Amino acid sequence: MEKPITVTFEPEGRRGRAATGTSIFQAAREVGVGIRSECAGEGTCGKCKVIVKNKNAANEVTDIEREHLSSREINSDYRLACRTIVKQNITVMVPEETRIGKRKIQITGLERPVPLNPSVKKFHVVLPKPTLSDVRPDFERLRDSLKKEQGYKKLRVNYELLKELPDILRNANWDLTVTIWSDHVIIAAEAGDTSNKLLGLAIDVGTSKIVGYVVDLMTGQTVGVGFIENPQIMHGEDVISRITFAMGSNEKLRVLQKLAVEGINDVLHEACTQASADPNNIYEATIAGNTAMHHFLLGIQPKHLAFSPYTPAVRKSIEVKAEKLGIKINRNGNVHVLPVIAGFVGADAVGDVLSSGIHESAELSLLLDIGTNTEAFVGNADDILSCSCASGPAFEGAHIKHGMKAVTGAIEKVRIIPDTYEVEYETIDDMKPVGLCGSAMVDIVAEMLKSGIINHHGRLNSDIETSRLKTVDKVPEFVLAWENETATEKEITVTQKDIGEIQLAKAAMFTGCSILMKRKNVKKENFDRVFIAGAFGNYINPENAKFIGLVPDVPTEKIEFVGNTAITGAKMVLVSREARETAEALSKRIRYLELAADPSFSSEFSQALFFPHRDLDRFPSVRKYLKFER
Amino acid sequence: MEKPITVTFEPEGRRGRAATGTSIFQAAREVGVGIRSECAGEGTCGKCKVIVKNKNAANEVTDIEREHLSSREINSDYRLACRTIVKQNITVMVPEETRIGKRKIQITGLERPVPLNPSVKKFHVVLPKPTLSDVRPDFERLRDSLKKEQGYKKLRVNYELLKELPDILRNANWDLTVTIWSDHVIIAAEAGDTSNKLLGLAIDVGTSKIVGYVVDLMTGQTVGVGFIENPQIMHGEDVISRITFAMGSNEKLRVLQKLAVEGINDVLHEACTQASADPNNIYEATIAGNTAMHHFLLGIQPKHLAFSPYTPAVRKSIEVKAEKLGIKINRNGNVHVLPVIAGFVGADAVGDVLSSGIHESAELSLLLDIGTNTEAFVGNADDILSCSCASGPAFEGAHIKHGMKAVTGAIEKVRIIPDTYEVEYETIDDMKPVGLCGSAMVDIVAEMLKSGIINHHGRLNSDIETSRLKTVDKVPEFVLAWENETATEKEITVTQKDIGEIQLAKAAMFTGCSILMKRKNVKKENFDRVFIAGAFGNYINPENAKFIGLVPDVPTEKIEFVGNTAITGAKMVLVSREARETAEALSKRIRYLELAADPSFSSEFSQALFFPHRDLDRFPSVRKYLKFER
Repeated sequence: MEKPITVTFEPEGRRGRAATGTSIFQAAREVGVGIRSECAGEGTCGKCKVIVKNKNAANEVTDIEREHLSSREINSDYRLACRTIVKQNITVMVPEETRIGKRKIQITGLERPVPLNPSVKKFHVVLPKPTLSDVRPDFERLRDSLKKEQGYKKLRVNYELLKELPDILRNANWDLTVTIWSDHVIIAAEAGDTSNKLLGLAIDVGTSKIVGYVVDLMTGQTVGVGFIENPQIMHGEDVISRITFAMGSNEKLRVLQKLAVEGINDVLHEACTQASADPNNIYEATIAGNTAMHHFLLGIQPKHLAFSPYTPAVRKSIEVKAEKLGIKINRNGNVHVLPVIAGFVGADAVGDVLSSGIHESAELSLLLDIGTNTEAFVGNADDILSCSCASGPAFEGAHIKHGMKAVTGAIEKVRIIPDTYEVEYETIDDMKPVGLCGSAMVDIVAEMLKSGIINHHGRLNSDIETSRLKTVDKVPEFVLAWENETATEKEITVTQKDIGEIQLAKAAMFTGCSILMKRKNVKKENFDRVFIAGAFGNYINPENAKFIGLVPDVPTEKIEFVGNTAITGAKMVLVSREARETAEALSKRIRYLELAADPSFSSEFSQALFFPHRDLDRFPSVRKYLKFER
Repeated sequence: MEKPITVTFEPEGRRGRAATGTSIFQAAREVGVGIRSECAGEGTCGKCKVIVKNKNAANEVTDIEREHLSSREINSDYRLACRTIVKQNITVMVPEETRIGKRKIQITGLERPVPLNPSVKKFHVVLPKPTLSDVRPDFERLRDSLKKEQGYKKLRVNYELLKELPDILRNANWDLTVTIWSDHVIIAAEAGDTSNKLLGLAIDVGTSKIVGYVVDLMTGQTVGVGFIENPQIMHGEDVISRITFAMGSNEKLRVLQKLAVEGINDVLHEACTQASADPNNIYEATIAGNTAMHHFLLGIQPKHLAFSPYTPAVRKSIEVKAEKLGIKINRNGNVHVLPVIAGFVGADAVGDVLSSGIHESAELSLLLDIGTNTEAFVGNADDILSCSCASGPAFEGAHIKHGMKAVTGAIEKVRIIPDTYEVEYETIDDMKPVGLCGSAMVDIVAEMLKSGIINHHGRLNSDIETSRLKTVDKVPEFVLAWENETATEKEITVTQKDIGEIQLAKAAMFTGCSILMKRKNVKKENFDRVFIAGAFGNYINPENAKFIGLVPDVPTEKIEFVGNTAITGAKMVLVSREARETAEALSKRIRYLELAADPSFSSEFSQALFFPHRDLDRFPSVRKYLKFER
């Protein structure tokens, strides 16, 4: 009966042995996988959510779990680790939100101060009661008071609220607090004085993650944060595969819309729990996302984003009732979806510019938001030109043999000793390595270049003498960690093909920068600042990024990592109507360049495939370290 | 087998004998009940709808009937008369919409010309196709064209339309017609040039009837008319009983809302069929109704209308999406619900004023819209004062022993020969009499006064010598038609109690006029015109109305019957934005007087209970004909 069971924890691949009857929570502790818990496995906090890959290997879902898990979660095989008893060999996925330890999920970004002036405002009013000599209708009575006391002249009322207004006013005994949206619509009314309970929600719907802030609109402070994997991932990791899925039918588009909304509601729930906030006190949500996420969320046919000339349905911001979208803030609350710029330069990019402030500065800036699509901007207060670069998911660990996301156990930093070719690395949470994340890939390519393991073309140099260089299935690869060093007990290597993926990604990005610079007639010396945004950006070594030609060769002190500026942009437009107007203006003002339409695209791209570039004059600071020259 | 069957037709109570196997349609022809039909009983037109009271007495519903009847109708035992075969004695209700002959349903009213300027406008546009050098988003592309060609500057787009816009534009090959509402929102887009297909719907939701016009908004002409009994009647004949029903729960309020919407959709369907119009080409509906109907339709809690001080939830007009209400015009169409004035002076009253034009004239007018509640207005272009009089349903035949609505077989005109007390009468459609409608009641009371059958107090004079005067169950009554004259083979009489009902009704109405006149410091001699609106109004004898003190004693030539001005008001705001603005202004401008709060109410009311009035100096033209004096 005491036959030991193997429990495998994904995504690290960490494995341990457990006796029958052990909970997943105990097994995780024993093998050193960090799982969140506030109740130490007592089944009361509901934080230790995991996904069981082979559910028949565990006990049935318990009542306690049904209390903590949504039906969607239960259907997706979510369990509470502390209530799940292993019966057979089992594989358990630990979702990001359940991990503990050093998080590499970029949920914060640069915030620039903005005047506190949210679109929603609350006012406490006490109305005179109706009498036979004052028979004013309920709404007009309320409107008259708000006009007299607050100076509002042309107030309307939300139709859904109007339906209940007669009862609300009388149940409140005419003493109530109203919420006004955008200085012209009364959207909520509550008994008593609740004017100090005024919250907002800022959301960034990313292709891979949804991040949300609950913000106190009386102070502008973030009081709760939540994040989750974008549940649309089940219908494709990247934007194009999801668009392809949604093209099938309107029902499929609605599936993606529903998943986005459910994801937002999960994030909302988490952030509210953290802030001990009542979602009914959230009267507005602002949502940023790339153009495809924007279309999915709004249920707009996204098909035409996938075909030349990649036109979105709409650029301007959209206001929708929260209830209409199904977002569970106050049911008369408003959802403001930030404007987009073009088919592949979305509302997240508007947030990037807004947060970085390049549009307000005389200084010339380059801004890169690195992701599966990298948005690039060159400009200043006078003019900004943007483009989208199909950089692909290599920097997120995809299409790389031992690639993984930046989670526990990922190698994140690498140094290769010249001459000996020995490798030093650091992993996230200092665990035994499981794989390579994006920042490691930048280091690896840069270090291999410096030490001559690869050349200008990215080709592995078969002449160097090290046992780390080998050939597997006819593909040359370089060993970074031997099997006895790793959690998976397998070698972690970088292959010729992996280097090719990085080459394509960085070439796409640099081509974008290059063409923007040419169009703007700007040289790298002219840049006052280079902003790098995006989850990946924050962890890369800027010297190495320049070394491989990912970013132009500017002095490192000009490079600033600004993090998740999509969410901070969403927060800015949440707390400030001025920022909202700026975002709207930016979406029109930022010019968009369709790279594919530029005649120099292919020549620029083929030159950028070199490390760091075919034209080494563009990378003078790198040139001197290179072991090769053409 | 040939045992004859009795078929009784309601509401007249007309009866006939029919052989087994006869259709209701044939039976109706044989006994002279007029039933609509365009196909002469072939089962193709669907016009001969009747309601079978004991459905087991007829054959099962046929497939042909299922084609013509809605499921709601089938559940309510509607049948097509031509497809319903009688098997046993049967009672059949002929609804108003199925009757032929002289209709006494007031579905039209005075129309004043207004400038043709509807809120919805259509424009045919051909857009440049997107290219890599012109990647404007779809909405902005459309907006730019409309700006360039039509001068629109700040257009928005309906969110529901936006979702489909990408496909609509491409399926139309960029050649399409858009509908713009209120010069600022694009609400529809269709392939090709459909700019000449622009219809609107005007609706009056009355307590007892719903009437609708389909209007061609290119010409302003009414092209189809529909009407139906208000299906809410099943939850109470009058406003207060329906409010009482709705107070029970929100579900019950929703029941009334749903019934109003279904009724409107039935009327829409009928009017569209008549006009051979596609409801999808109707982009706006305007709806007038009294304040209770307004609240029911919008789903606004109506409870507080029933309690002092009778405040409505809102006065101003309401815009709601047709889809939200469930009204089956174009699904992105708009519904404009006209503004109300007070709890018992509704949007129908705004229509009355708008249609009569009293607000634009220097002439001093009295306007009465007679119904279960009678709205009264005194004023001119300078100022209008209004009130609501609880006149009750006596003039609609309710609470009168032999009262009935103004349908086939109702006695509508009565004359009593002085001295002999013989009675002459006319019936609707010249059928044998079935009962008495409201206009007959006015004649009867006036004629009885003139001939001394009743006195100043309305008391039957037991001293007069005629066999028509008798006592039934201790209540004195006067025979108007002997049993051998009537369709029901029973005497038709007017009782002391009936006279009391008329007395209360006319006193309520006159008290309203009287107090308004006093407040406005106006004497009857000052009136330039007296408008009488409402279904009942059109058929009363104005001399007799004055004689009983229903209206002030003004020269008859000053009295104008204007019919259903609620529906014509709705039509005016449908075809003219200027009229819409006027209606909005009127709802604020028309002052409302709460009669119950007037200190002279009880003394005015008790004086008005006399025929024509306690103070005969107020009725000099009547005085000389009276057989009595106090």
